Amino acid sequence: MRYKATVAYHGAAYQGWQIQPHGNSVQQEIENVLFKMHKQKIEIVASGRTDAKVHALGQVFHFDSFLDIPEERMKTALNSLLPKDIKIENVEIVNSNFHARFHAKSKRYDYYLKCGEISPFISDLVAFESHTLDIEYMQECAKLFLGEHDFTTFTSSKIDPRKSKVKVITNLQVLKEDTIVHFIFEGNGFLRYMVRMITQTLIEAGKHRISLEDIRHMIEAKDKHLCRYKAEPQGLYLVKVEYYGEEDKKM
Amino acid sequence: MRYKATVAYHGAAYQGWQIQPHGNSVQQEIENVLFKMHKQKIEIVASGRTDAKVHALGQVFHFDSFLDIPEERMKTALNSLLPKDIKIENVEIVNSNFHARFHAKSKRYDYYLKCGEISPFISDLVAFESHTLDIEYMQECAKLFLGEHDFTTFTSSKIDPRKSKVKVITNLQVLKEDTIVHFIFEGNGFLRYMVRMITQTLIEAGKHRISLEDIRHMIEAKDKHLCRYKAEPQGLYLVKVEYYGEEDKKM
Repeated sequence: MRYKATVAYHGAAYQGWQIQPHGNSVQQEIENVLFKMHKQKIEIVASGRTDAKVHALGQVFHFDSFLDIPEERMKTALNSLLPKDIKIENVEIVNSNFHARFHAKSKRYDYYLKCGEISPFISDLVAFESHTLDIEYMQECAKLFLGEHDFTTFTSSKIDPRKSKVKVITNLQVLKEDTIVHFIFEGNGFLRYMVRMITQTLIEAGKHRISLEDIRHMIEAKDKHLCRYKAEPQGLYLVKVEYYGEEDKKM
Repeated sequence: MRYKATVAYHGAAYQGWQIQPHGNSVQQEIENVLFKMHKQKIEIVASGRTDAKVHALGQVFHFDSFLDIPEERMKTALNSLLPKDIKIENVEIVNSNFHARFHAKSKRYDYYLKCGEISPFISDLVAFESHTLDIEYMQECAKLFLGEHDFTTFTSSKIDPRKSKVKVITNLQVLKEDTIVHFIFEGNGFLRYMVRMITQTLIEAGKHRISLEDIRHMIEAKDKHLCRYKAEPQGLYLVKVEYYGEEDKKM
């Protein structure tokens, strides 16, 4: 039986989603719990990775289980064994061909930047910025990223050159909420570091260190060495993953 | 010149206040910064230790510096070099005989216990409790701890037997604030683990696993093996340290 699970996690203690040879990963914690329940290895497949210290409100993964457990009881069983910084929010039994990565239609990432004084108790939940930012200018610059682009400039330079860097950003908002600058990214998918690199590029524009014209050039150049900017991981949240055919996923 | 500094820290990443042979400590982070500023070791003396994962809103320490830096500039210099989960809240130049430990008159610790569902994003800032608690009964039991007692039952059994275990608790409140149970402890000093052991004892009473009479007996017995309870560290905050002669500390 195939299960689709939605999970929230506080990323501070983890080397990221994916199992690493050294250090904790969220995937490993969940697979450890499934191993306890099944007495054998059960592999889980997520919508995609998140980097070290990045959080999730709605990461999605799937796995197959031979235990015939109803959805709510599966959720309770997982949560009772997981560490407190990982929480299963929802479990559904899905069609056996559902795939958490291949069937993802869109993703939403949010980024939180706190301006002004540092607060130690949220230091692993937001990034901090001491400069004053020109929010309206950042909003203007953000529009340049909307639509379909080759985002080669805004991803790791080590990424496989044969892999397409074309993605569609359907929504990119920069909102000022009291002392927090809240970025919202929605699109059909995001390359490694893409959200953090675009975020920091917009922050640099907000400081008037780079211009709207510079950003336009950066996008058009498709040059993997052109963007030196990458926002810190602890401000980033994978908020939601949406799937094709969500209306007919239960059989 | 002697400086008195007040510091807030998020304890999640630290093995506690005191320098440890393995692992990070808050004291080490601050001494590292002072070393950078002075190009030599500057030792700091705190009001007392805090354990691994315990937080502080108002820990106090003192140190001597040959750099003739005004109070506000010292604060800014320290904060600019410290990690973001440690923040100097205040710096004052004090009389050269001020001592952060020996002159402490009283301390306040708060403990936060979240009841009901786990929230992963506050999992290193509060403890969780899934049982329903009888708050009124906890409040009754809390009164037993008020005043001067020998708290041998409520400290580490490894503590030096020659050291006095007599302390005065001047205030102990158990407040229900929405889904949070908020404990406030004030007294002339607290032994190692004392706040966490009393907190968990009150939680067990709130579950009716032990009675008011059991607690009365535990206090009177002064038996270091009698209390098996210790609340988790991440709910605990050192809130404030007050000093004798605060009114005449500046010379």
